[in-house]
This record gives sequence, structure tokens and C-alpha cells, in this order.
Amino acid sequence: MSLKLFELVGSDAGRPFSPFCWRTRMALAHKGLSAETIPWCFTEKEAIAPHKSDKVPVLLDGETSVVDSWAIANYLEDSYPDRPSLFGGEGGRAIARMLNWWGDLSIVGGIFPLIIADIPLNLKPVDAAYFRKSREARFGRPLEEIMAGRDKAVEGFRKSLDPLRLTLKTQTFLGGAAPNYADYIVFGPFQWARVVSPFRLLAEDDPVHAWRERLFDAFDGMARKSPGYPA
Amino acid sequence: MSLKLFELVGSDAGRPFSPFCWRTRMALAHKGLSAETIPWCFTEKEAIAPHKSDKVPVLLDGETSVVDSWAIANYLEDSYPDRPSLFGGEGGRAIARMLNWWGDLSIVGGIFPLIIADIPLNLKPVDAAYFRKSREARFGRPLEEIMAGRDKAVEGFRKSLDPLRLTLKTQTFLGGAAPNYADYIVFGPFQWARVVSPFRLLAEDDPVHAWRERLFDAFDGMARKSPGYPA
Repeated sequence: MSLKLFELVGSDAGRPFSPFCWRTRMALAHKGLSAETIPWCFTEKEAIAPHKSDKVPVLLDGETSVVDSWAIANYLEDSYPDRPSLFGGEGGRAIARMLNWWGDLSIVGGIFPLIIADIPLNLKPVDAAYFRKSREARFGRPLEEIMAGRDKAVEGFRKSLDPLRLTLKTQTFLGGAAPNYADYIVFGPFQWARVVSPFRLLAEDDPVHAWRERLFDAFDGMARKSPGYPA
Repeated sequence: MSLKLFELVGSDAGRPFSPFCWRTRMALAHKGLSAETIPWCFTEKEAIAPHKSDKVPVLLDGETSVVDSWAIANYLEDSYPDRPSLFGGEGGRAIARMLNWWGDLSIVGGIFPLIIADIPLNLKPVDAAYFRKSREARFGRPLEEIMAGRDKAVEGFRKSLDPLRLTLKTQTFLGGAAPNYADYIVFGPFQWARVVSPFRLLAEDDPVHAWRERLFDAFDGMARKSPGYPA
């Protein structure tokens, strides 16, 4: 077994920050697997082109390459069935598909405008220019303008977490008594934000804050030890 | 085994319409169980007070009473383990808890203002008066005003279905290849709307529309055969 993982970084190659790569990092740790990291920057498209992708994460497992965090989670679950399950059975896997979309739309999509102008500060000049140009084209206005008013906008984001918040009234993790991939789907974006931005997404008395603390502590504090801002 | 189910009805005792009762109806059918229905109206609080509830569904299983659709689903799963699983394993049950909250907040909560003034038209005068008074107090304005502009407001509701819509790109049901309780969580509110309102919630070319059709057809067309408007 020889696993390698292309992970998004900026000017500091030891500071991986993609929400999707963090889902994969947590999934690998859950399976008790370690992967050699291959730092990858936004503009290094040619490095992953042989794997038929222009985005990371890309996982290499010997001769096999797997693209996209959801596909990687499924690959790990199927290829390493004797290790702890990421989904807790086929029912969990099926429902997690929708949770993954909710995580992409509401969590990644909800956090992005709140930290978007902080991201290029973490990038090499060439990647910062690429990021600004492509994201300003997508949103139709300057990054700083998208992020302006985030102190107010964060309230809407916090409200959008209600399904998670209410779930935590009766269970410790989305996966139940212990975390599983359902948790990593939502946690990855929070770790992304912590790595690239000092902005406080959560109030300290929020049950979601306590849940996030538990995931910072998971796997011997793997996510907490990775460089980032205080969350 | 002698199951009885308190179900919300209006002036027509044969036209059950609660989104939560429909979740339970579908769950019972999934388990291959039948329950004697006990029609119940909003103002009949004393009929269910002995079961320590002021809302339905309330399931009676011999001497046991179970309150709340989520609790009932778990009760059925645990009490009838040899019948088809509602969750596809413990991982599915754990993640379904969050889906249930999403269903309450986004689906029930999203549909409610779109059909709210149609609901009392289905009720006996005493229940219609109760409904109007309690819901207008909750929303702070007349039912008709809440529902005004629904032709425009439905667009936001349809957009909120994106996590479901995207999931259906790669699987037939939220539960996977076959429906399970994850589907009933979301379908129950759609059936509620169909029973009490002629308003069209979904465009016919929407993949969510096709998914809903499959659930209308489930269990020999149980939901479709129940009285309601064309969906």
C-alpha cells in the first residue's frame, strides 16, 4: 500500500487548506491510513492533468488514481473494508450523498463569501492572481466587496447550521456516538476557514462550536495541529 | 400486534394530511405493517392527552404509545427488526437524524407559507378558527398575506431543494436504489401539500418531480390513492 494525496496549499507548502482535501485527510485518518502529501497550487494544472482532473484532492493508490473527495471516500470504504467504516453501512452511505451536497452548497458555499478576500493573502502571487480573476468573474464583483459586511452576513450562515445544531441536541456527532464521514463532510469546510482566515465563524456558546472542537481534537488533534488561525 | 395511529384530518375524516403522519404512514408500509387509523382534529387535544402529547402522530402498539414521527420511526425499526430496515443500518439512522431536521426546517418550513391559507379550507369551522388564530399569532400576519406572492416565493423553495436534486443525479432515492425513511422524511411534506392545496410546488421537468412520482407510486400507490389534489 502506497498512498499519495495531492493537497491544495498556498505559499506555505505545509499548510493545506482545501475543504475537500480536509474531508479526505479526515477520512484517511478514520481508516488508519497515512498518505504522502504532494503539495499542489491552483495554477499547477499540468501536475494533475495525467489523472484527468483539474482540481484536488487526487488520491494515488499504487497505480490507481481517484479524483474528487466523495469518490475518494467511497474508494477508501470499498478498498479498505476491514478498517473502520466511514458510513456505518450502506444506508449511511446512501444518505451521506445528500449530506455531501448540503455540505457543498450550504457549508462551503456559506463560508466562501465570508473569507474569500482572505484567501489570496495565503497564496503565491501567481496563484493569488489566478484566484482573484477566476472568483471575481464567478461572483461578478471584487473579492473585498463580496466579503464586506461579513460581520452581519455571518448571522445568516450561523442560522443555516440549524439542522446540524438541532441534531447535536441528541447525539455527539452526525455519525452518532463517534464521528464518521458525515462529520468530515461538514468539518472540512470549517478547517479550511481556520487555515486561511482569522474570521470567527461560530459563537463560543454554540453547540456547533463544541462539536467542531471535538473534531479539532480527533486523531490526536490532527486538524488542530495543522497550521492555521485560532478558531 | 395491534397498531393504531392517531392521524390529523380536517372536515373529511378520510383525508389525512399531516406531513409528520405521512412520514409514519410510509414507514408503516415500508415495514409491511398496517395500523388502524384514528382520525384526529387540531382541537381534540383531550383525545391524545393520556399519551402525553398535544400533537400527532401518536402510535399505539398494544399498551405502548409512541409520540413524534422520528420517535415512531425508531420504535418501528427497533421493535420490528426482522422487517425491511427503515435506515439501512446504524450509520443511516444516525445521519437520518440530521436529514429529519433538514426536512422539518427546509421542506415543511419551506412549503408552509406557500399553502398556509389553503389549509383552513379543509378544516371544520372550530379547527379552522384554531388554526388561523394560532398560526397568525406565530407569523404575525394574516394567512392570506403570508401566502400572497407564492408564485414568486416558490422559486426560492425550489432552489432550496438543490441538495436533493443533485443527489438524484446519481441515485434513484435518498435511501439508494430503493426508498427508505430518508425519502419518507422529505416526501411526507409533499404529500401534505397535495392533500390540502392545489398549488403546484414542482415543475414537471424537475428531477424532484420524478422522484415524488415514484413515491406516489410506492406501496401500490398508497399516497396517490389517498384523497388530494392533482400534484
